[in-house]
Amino acid sequence: MPERKPAAVLTVGSELTTGLRVDTNTARIAAKCTAAGYRVTEAVTVADDRDAIAAAIARLARGNELVVVTGGLGPTHDDLTREAASSALGRPLVRDDRLAEQLEAVARRHDDPVARAQVLRQAEILDGARVIPPVTGTAPGQVIDTPSGLVALLPGPPSEMLPMLEQVLEGARSVAEPVVLRCARILESDAQVRAQRALEGRADVELSVLASPGLVDVVLMDVGCGREGLAEAAQAVAHAVGEACYSMDGASLPEAVVRLARAAFVRIAVAESCTGGMIASAITDVPGASEVFVGGVVAYSNSLKTALLGVEEDLLRSHGAVSREVAEAMAHGALSLGADFAVSTTGIAGPSGGTAAKPVGLVWVAVAAPDATNAYELHLRGDRQQVRQRAVVNALDLLRLSLERA
Amino acid sequence: MPERKPAAVLTVGSELTTGLRVDTNTARIAAKCTAAGYRVTEAVTVADDRDAIAAAIARLARGNELVVVTGGLGPTHDDLTREAASSALGRPLVRDDRLAEQLEAVARRHDDPVARAQVLRQAEILDGARVIPPVTGTAPGQVIDTPSGLVALLPGPPSEMLPMLEQVLEGARSVAEPVVLRCARILESDAQVRAQRALEGRADVELSVLASPGLVDVVLMDVGCGREGLAEAAQAVAHAVGEACYSMDGASLPEAVVRLARAAFVRIAVAESCTGGMIASAITDVPGASEVFVGGVVAYSNSLKTALLGVEEDLLRSHGAVSREVAEAMAHGALSLGADFAVSTTGIAGPSGGTAAKPVGLVWVAVAAPDATNAYELHLRGDRQQVRQRAVVNALDLLRLSLERA
Repeated sequence: MPERKPAAVLTVGSELTTGLRVDTNTARIAAKCTAAGYRVTEAVTVADDRDAIAAAIARLARGNELVVVTGGLGPTHDDLTREAASSALGRPLVRDDRLAEQLEAVARRHDDPVARAQVLRQAEILDGARVIPPVTGTAPGQVIDTPSGLVALLPGPPSEMLPMLEQVLEGARSVAEPVVLRCARILESDAQVRAQRALEGRADVELSVLASPGLVDVVLMDVGCGREGLAEAAQAVAHAVGEACYSMDGASLPEAVVRLARAAFVRIAVAESCTGGMIASAITDVPGASEVFVGGVVAYSNSLKTALLGVEEDLLRSHGAVSREVAEAMAHGALSLGADFAVSTTGIAGPSGGTAAKPVGLVWVAVAAPDATNAYELHLRGDRQQVRQRAVVNALDLLRLSLERA
Repeated sequence: MPERKPAAVLTVGSELTTGLRVDTNTARIAAKCTAAGYRVTEAVTVADDRDAIAAAIARLARGNELVVVTGGLGPTHDDLTREAASSALGRPLVRDDRLAEQLEAVARRHDDPVARAQVLRQAEILDGARVIPPVTGTAPGQVIDTPSGLVALLPGPPSEMLPMLEQVLEGARSVAEPVVLRCARILESDAQVRAQRALEGRADVELSVLASPGLVDVVLMDVGCGREGLAEAAQAVAHAVGEACYSMDGASLPEAVVRLARAAFVRIAVAESCTGGMIASAITDVPGASEVFVGGVVAYSNSLKTALLGVEEDLLRSHGAVSREVAEAMAHGALSLGADFAVSTTGIAGPSGGTAAKPVGLVWVAVAAPDATNAYELHLRGDRQQVRQRAVVNALDLLRLSLERA
């Protein structure tokens, strides 16, 4: 196994150290660095405090071949990363004339002289730094070559930061990109055992299995196998986990559903009770969903189940809203909205509303296809949010399987 | 202003340093520590690596009066925080008999002798540590008194960690809990200026303003004003931001809507096109929503707008689906689902589908109330996800105002 080069991540912002914001940049940067062959030894967050930023940069730059710093590069007075890096690395700040020229154009839009001067601060770079011009936004990135490795200063907003990070990592890539087998409706332990067996005797592939409510990601990393070896390993694991795997190219479950529907030239609809619009919202989150998604009904009350989906009142009375019969009738009713496939949910998400016979967590999902309607009884764990989230995953995955078999 | 005591957060987990998971614990812990009067100087994440954990604990314990460590306290072989803390703080691990007894009961459930032994590892505590018994889960917390301050080792899962953190912070609280004025449909800069004016001359209240798509949080922190002073300041700021503020007690926008509807004994429905179920899903996320929420229609296709909401085909032909007329007809149609108030959305979320006359980001929202139906033309910035998110916030907030005035 080739030794991975050590890297560190530093995020800067008082909104992070006071807990007003969750830091999502660290995970994005760590994932990209790991994929490029680095081992992230440490991720650090400090406030907008010049001394704290400088101390962290100095410390992290000593032991790492790459330090990615984000935040604190904007125009305002609490953007202190430039000054801090300058003192930590012993490189004076100099004005980059080309950047200054571009920023002059931005500065002229401001009436306020203070705001104008602030914009121009972003033209200051550490002496000798390589400038990464801004694509969106106004703050440039800078990469400084130090005796122990690279220090990259990147702006905080992900849309500005990520393309610059790609440039920093370009050329550094020493391993194949990890392959993620995304799976649904399989136990984490089951996925782990199946993947381990498929990889038996292979020390050149590293396996991690990650679960979130209803979903399991099987991650394969190159620790010596190379791109082709990783692809082979992925095929073996895919075979072992079987139809639980819905994508190997990063597609989300709703994306997999939309892609299948598009390929089969079919239209889909939803009828949601306990998931209350979450399935529709997941599907419509996919760009181009309108080509395959007709729409649906959030039939939270029984009267809507009857009025819009044609669920007979008798059925509701005799079996209750949370029942196989009502789930099937809802899915069937959704077909009549002009769809070829439809999925329905009806269940008890809690915290109240459960009984001994129908406890919190009981959810019926039905999938109506052109040839048949099938219903599934689920007993889902967790609080209201988790029960709903798991119900969405199950419903989408059952719809996915039905589309795959069509 | 009283000096805040320095604190640090350390999260442990290779799933964090490889970027496979976003670290949400740090923000929760930092917020709680800040609210209790600490200043979080640094947040650090390291992998499941004994030496790295030990080095981080030793370093952070030197300069901080409180170090909160989470993760790596479970039963498996990659849970190394106990051993690392033991070596970092120079305290041997000893078995806590009472914990061991409780864990024996858990261990007996396992057939596998390795699993049984692993469970019992959780009874090992640092010599002299105060034990915080587990409420949910099996891992106890431990608090160690060191020469420079407290080091708290807490399990990673938030549901286990948070109640323990409350116990650690109890007694340490030296300032009033921050007040957050949650606002919608106001510019961040506008909120900032209004709040600053309302707080003019007060150095005992610290202001931060945080924006997320469509929403602005105005945060007031006690830096000497005390609980009553903070309440007064909050009233002054609330007056200054006016009806943009939808909650001062932490309630989310959907929670505010459900609360208002419940107080007014009215029922609500939705008719969503571009938001595709997101409004319904936000409302049904609130426990007890079924008392006030009838349901709705995700009318993604024009045919559903006509079939389920009674939008006339003529209207769709002459004005187009994204128009004031169709938004109003959709909201009006949703009323007939059995609601007193209804909100509708129709717009162009992108990335494609925009024209010169109707560009991406154009969204019409209509609110139908018993006495009148009003429509609002919005031009929203951002990518597909952001346009949809902003449309949801605007729609919910316009519904909220309509309910407030009812």
